[in-house]
Amino acid sequence: AAPKPMKAQAKLVGDIISKPPILANQNISINEASKILIENGINHLPIVDENKNLVGIITSWDIARAVAQNKNSILEIMTATVISSTVDEPIDVLARKMSIYNISGAPILDKNKKVVGMITAEDLSKLVGIRAKL
Amino acid sequence: AAPKPMKAQAKLVGDIISKPPILANQNISINEASKILIENGINHLPIVDENKNLVGIITSWDIARAVAQNKNSILEIMTATVISSTVDEPIDVLARKMSIYNISGAPILDKNKKVVGMITAEDLSKLVGIRAKL
Ligand SMILES: C[S@@+](CC[C@H](N)C(=O)[O-])C[C@H]1O[C@@H](n2cnc3c(N)ncnc32)[C@H](O)[C@@H]1O
Repeated sequence: AAPKPMKAQAKLVGDIISKPPILANQNISINEASKILIENGINHLPIVDENKNLVGIITSWDIARAVAQNKNSILEIMTATVISSTVDEPIDVLARKMSIYNISGAPILDKNKKVVGMITAEDLSKLVGIRAKL
Repeated sequence: AAPKPMKAQAKLVGDIISKPPILANQNISINEASKILIENGINHLPIVDENKNLVGIITSWDIARAVAQNKNSILEIMTATVISSTVDEPIDVLARKMSIYNISGAPILDKNKKVVGMITAEDLSKLVGIRAKL
């Protein structure tokens, strides 16, 4: 039988996160943050405190901002008010949230507010390719 | 009547590009490229020659690479083999191409190979939110 069209409404954020998240502490330097982004081929780095609680996010755009505006510390370029999601949020709700807040990624939190993954616009845009095939 | 589900197959890249592209010349510095990204709130900067032909692309990830690896010139961090698209390419084909090549954006070229726009993973991920509403 032909595959059924995917129901977007049924798909949850938890269905498409896979990797353990790459996280960093807020004491790192801009150079160290850049290295983490490059070595892992990623654009988003959630920043956590000693208890692994989310305190901010650094993206490669923030690194470009540091270069453009001669900022020298993570705290100057980090976004502290992080738009996040949970594993049980429908993917389309997260997609709209990312669109409304004009962000390219969101850390995914579990019930205890620990970061368990990241979802980026790249992850979501892959769904466009998949759906169109059905 | 209720809106019909959007047919992904029918949608072309040209249907979702709107803004004129922000472009730069390859003679700019890394600092200037960073400023263009930040002032325009973008992550991708197609690089063109005097004749407006595409010669590369710079993203904020490349700026992070310059910071991580102490690179000092655009030519060192620019990706010269650019994956591009055309206004008449179906959106889902572009989405798969971006996924396969692990890129987060593609310059859109017209028949004369001039850059007429950019499509990013963020643009595509907005479609996930829209489709899910139907
Ligand atoms: C391999 S990705 C890794 C990070 C992330 N996946 C992303 O796309 O931003 C980053 C590299 O892709 C390159 N890139 C982005 N868009 C491109 C395109 N349309 N064609 C070729 N290379 C591109 C950038 O210049 C950068 O060096």
